[in-house]
Amino acid sequence: MTPTITAFERSPDRGKGLARDMRVRWALEEVGQPYEVRLVSFLAMKEPAHLALHPFAQIPTYEEGDLALFETGSIVFHIAERHAGLLPDDANARARAITWMFAAVNTVEPPILELATVRLLEGDKPWSKERLPLVENRVRDRLKQLSGRLGDADWLDGAFSAGDLMMVSVLLRLKGSGMLDEYPNLSAYVARGEARPAYKRAFDAQLAVFTAASSG
Amino acid sequence: MTPTITAFERSPDRGKGLARDMRVRWALEEVGQPYEVRLVSFLAMKEPAHLALHPFAQIPTYEEGDLALFETGSIVFHIAERHAGLLPDDANARARAITWMFAAVNTVEPPILELATVRLLEGDKPWSKERLPLVENRVRDRLKQLSGRLGDADWLDGAFSAGDLMMVSVLLRLKGSGMLDEYPNLSAYVARGEARPAYKRAFDAQLAVFTAASSG
Repeated sequence: MTPTITAFERSPDRGKGLARDMRVRWALEEVGQPYEVRLVSFLAMKEPAHLALHPFAQIPTYEEGDLALFETGSIVFHIAERHAGLLPDDANARARAITWMFAAVNTVEPPILELATVRLLEGDKPWSKERLPLVENRVRDRLKQLSGRLGDADWLDGAFSAGDLMMVSVLLRLKGSGMLDEYPNLSAYVARGEARPAYKRAFDAQLAVFTAASSG
Repeated sequence: MTPTITAFERSPDRGKGLARDMRVRWALEEVGQPYEVRLVSFLAMKEPAHLALHPFAQIPTYEEGDLALFETGSIVFHIAERHAGLLPDDANARARAITWMFAAVNTVEPPILELATVRLLEGDKPWSKERLPLVENRVRDRLKQLSGRLGDADWLDGAFSAGDLMMVSVLLRLKGSGMLDEYPNLSAYVARGEARPAYKRAFDAQLAVFTAASSG
């Protein structure tokens, strides 16, 4: 059964691949599962039909027959459980890959989202400039720890897994901040993720939506 | 095999049950799995032996034979996968319960942690008072959406699951802020979680650690 995901009709990042449908597209491309996309406007995201799928009025959602899911971590995990290629067969290695999925969204992403908040939601506040270094240092604390654990390995725990897919996706939000450059092994890690053919196909697909919307 | 978890030698919340070992203790109590606890000091958490278990220098960790995990979401999921009682048997209901686990830590918890940051890490900053209502309103946005979805149900999706365990744990951080009282169905939801015998056993066990440390 071909699943259907939702994505922004017009992504606020202008097709840079930072909207969260990218994570799900990437996972689907890694496992070779075709999918359909339903575009949603900002207005429609707040309407009952979309809230029934996503109580927090966001994208992406995932529909497959009777099943409707939200939350990228959960959708990526669902895809990884049902196809080969995103989770190791060995039970312990599988549990560790899932650990990295949670670490990405619960430990590494929150300070990175706070950084976005400083710039986007509080950029006009009088405290914005003085507060920025505090938040940047919270991000650096996490990057330093992650960099220490990664060392000179290609991926976080053996072969590429859904844990890496989520972690690279989270770190990609820092592109443009220059902060990743302070940790060369993390920069190289993110670049390895972006170089994967599945990532590229997913990126091109989401960019095509934005390009079509802009020229429409 | 009896698993070993780590917890604070002296919890900064003074045994109020907000340290994250509580989530793992609760899950273990729900499924009836005995466990051992190794207490870790703030100093020891930053040393190589603990960093090998938890790259982000936090508690809890989970050790079971050759397996070592961190991240409460991942540990609770591991427990839920290996025992009956925390995830539904039906595949779709199971996937939805996992969605709520991710929603708890990735969508509901981040603004709640930001609220703690305002108070604990930035309480002495000149912007703290003026910024607080902005952050509170971000928390309210999530609570309102969650309240809307929960409605008058007992739990988020059918029977109590690991998704509820994680969500109640996250919401418990708001106790004392008074914000939960603005959403009576969420207050009642959290109270239902706290009333579970497994929650009470876990709470008493973590409180006993703090009490022993204080009288030692």
